[in-house]
Amino acid sequence: MKTYLDCLPCFMNQIVRVGRLLKLPEADCLAMLREFAGRFDDFELDDPPPKTAMILYDMISRYSGSKDPFKAIKRESTEKALALYPNLKKRVELTTAPLSLAAKFAVAGNVIDFGVASQFDLAVEIDRVVDDGAFGHWQEESFFKALEKAEWLLYLGDNTGETVMDRLFIETIAKETGTPVTYVVRESPIINDAILEDALAAGLDGCAEIVSSGCSAPGTVLDLCSPQFLNSFHSAPLIVSKGQGNYETLSGVNAPIFFFLKAKCPVIADHLGVQLGDLVLTKGE
Amino acid sequence: MKTYLDCLPCFMNQIVRVGRLLKLPEADCLAMLREFAGRFDDFELDDPPPKTAMILYDMISRYSGSKDPFKAIKRESTEKALALYPNLKKRVELTTAPLSLAAKFAVAGNVIDFGVASQFDLAVEIDRVVDDGAFGHWQEESFFKALEKAEWLLYLGDNTGETVMDRLFIETIAKETGTPVTYVVRESPIINDAILEDALAAGLDGCAEIVSSGCSAPGTVLDLCSPQFLNSFHSAPLIVSKGQGNYETLSGVNAPIFFFLKAKCPVIADHLGVQLGDLVLTKGE
Repeated sequence: MKTYLDCLPCFMNQIVRVGRLLKLPEADCLAMLREFAGRFDDFELDDPPPKTAMILYDMISRYSGSKDPFKAIKRESTEKALALYPNLKKRVELTTAPLSLAAKFAVAGNVIDFGVASQFDLAVEIDRVVDDGAFGHWQEESFFKALEKAEWLLYLGDNTGETVMDRLFIETIAKETGTPVTYVVRESPIINDAILEDALAAGLDGCAEIVSSGCSAPGTVLDLCSPQFLNSFHSAPLIVSKGQGNYETLSGVNAPIFFFLKAKCPVIADHLGVQLGDLVLTKGE
Repeated sequence: MKTYLDCLPCFMNQIVRVGRLLKLPEADCLAMLREFAGRFDDFELDDPPPKTAMILYDMISRYSGSKDPFKAIKRESTEKALALYPNLKKRVELTTAPLSLAAKFAVAGNVIDFGVASQFDLAVEIDRVVDDGAFGHWQEESFFKALEKAEWLLYLGDNTGETVMDRLFIETIAKETGTPVTYVVRESPIINDAILEDALAAGLDGCAEIVSSGCSAPGTVLDLCSPQFLNSFHSAPLIVSKGQGNYETLSGVNAPIFFFLKAKCPVIADHLGVQLGDLVLTKGE
């Protein structure tokens, strides 16, 4: 997906929101806005937004004096999600459609996203999904059919905390279809996206092989990924892509991808042809 | 009111929204975003936002090749509001509290604002106000008391179209208290703010003396106003200030001002201590 005009003001908004979340002084936030504005001539609309976001979050790291400024927030997200895990697991065990419910939980977990909005309530969101979730392009039948045939599954993770719902979904896949799963994390810290240590904290090593994409964007920019990952990506019989960042970088790519995400921004909702806030499970073109 | 960090991304958003509203090519919108970003170092948080907005809308004028790019939109707003006028006038005549209802219509008219959002429905908004409007700091009693004592009233207009509701309010004032009114417009076109010709099109010359503030910001920046206007402003026994732009530039000014506005942006709602969307009639400090 290209960068839309709307994305440029949104980047500026992210600076303000994330600067406040990280409790940076107002003068630093203003300095960041000015520094980022000074680079506007370099940004190309042909690039997917996560490529530009790398520049933005590198800057935030520098101002916050930390290579992983979201570390504490990520830890908290994982703890909150792990506290919900036993109850969610029980619900999946008790339902007659465990794969379907676990898939919904996995997409509901995508509400955790500090790049898009700072406020969310995971438990509320998950209940909302089960009770009256709004689904757009919810092609689970098609995905489950592909899953039955696939020898293995490449699963591109997104946010920390959401990782716990990914784990439950992958455990359910293991139980129902026995498909082996390779779980992909970012190469290095970017926003609250899951890196190796975050995937381990969520317990994903018990149900999947964990690998890095080699890319540090908040998405999967193929030309920034490692040869090793690209080899897996291009040979994978089936790919789950979680979240907006992965969608922004992989929509339009010719691969057997299903996108699992919550449409949290109007540009992506439009691009997908769904309503803002919809939960989406859709096959790539 | 100072410029908040949030205002800077909001300016960028306005470029995108207004660029589309005026049907400018995407390349021009991108060029405007880049040009405006290139001036970020010049913007001071101590300035009220409408001062920076002058720079923004000067740029939009230049790209659109028109000194009054909102001319057609303003004409349409006036026509729509004039079509509603007979019905609103009848409702004011039939109520037992004509000043109160006309004041509410005048604030409801403030929904017309292309700088903040492109979508509104004036008739719906006006009915919403009467049926279940959310009012914040609605100090009409205090205003009406001041009105009874005041020898004349200085009325600072805001958007075109809203001018028609201002006219109805001023006609009602003339009928109920007989207070003479001087109606103030911007010196030259800026967004859809009312200039002299827009006030005339709304029929305000039948009930008020129309003068210019001498200022072309979308607000009343006192150090950019004409000496003639400043003389009126400083001698006025009572001032009505319509809309966010006038609030942003006059809140904190020591003068007998009542602010009439719809809180359309979260920063202003916070600053006022009201909910976003609230209709406000509040005395200046």
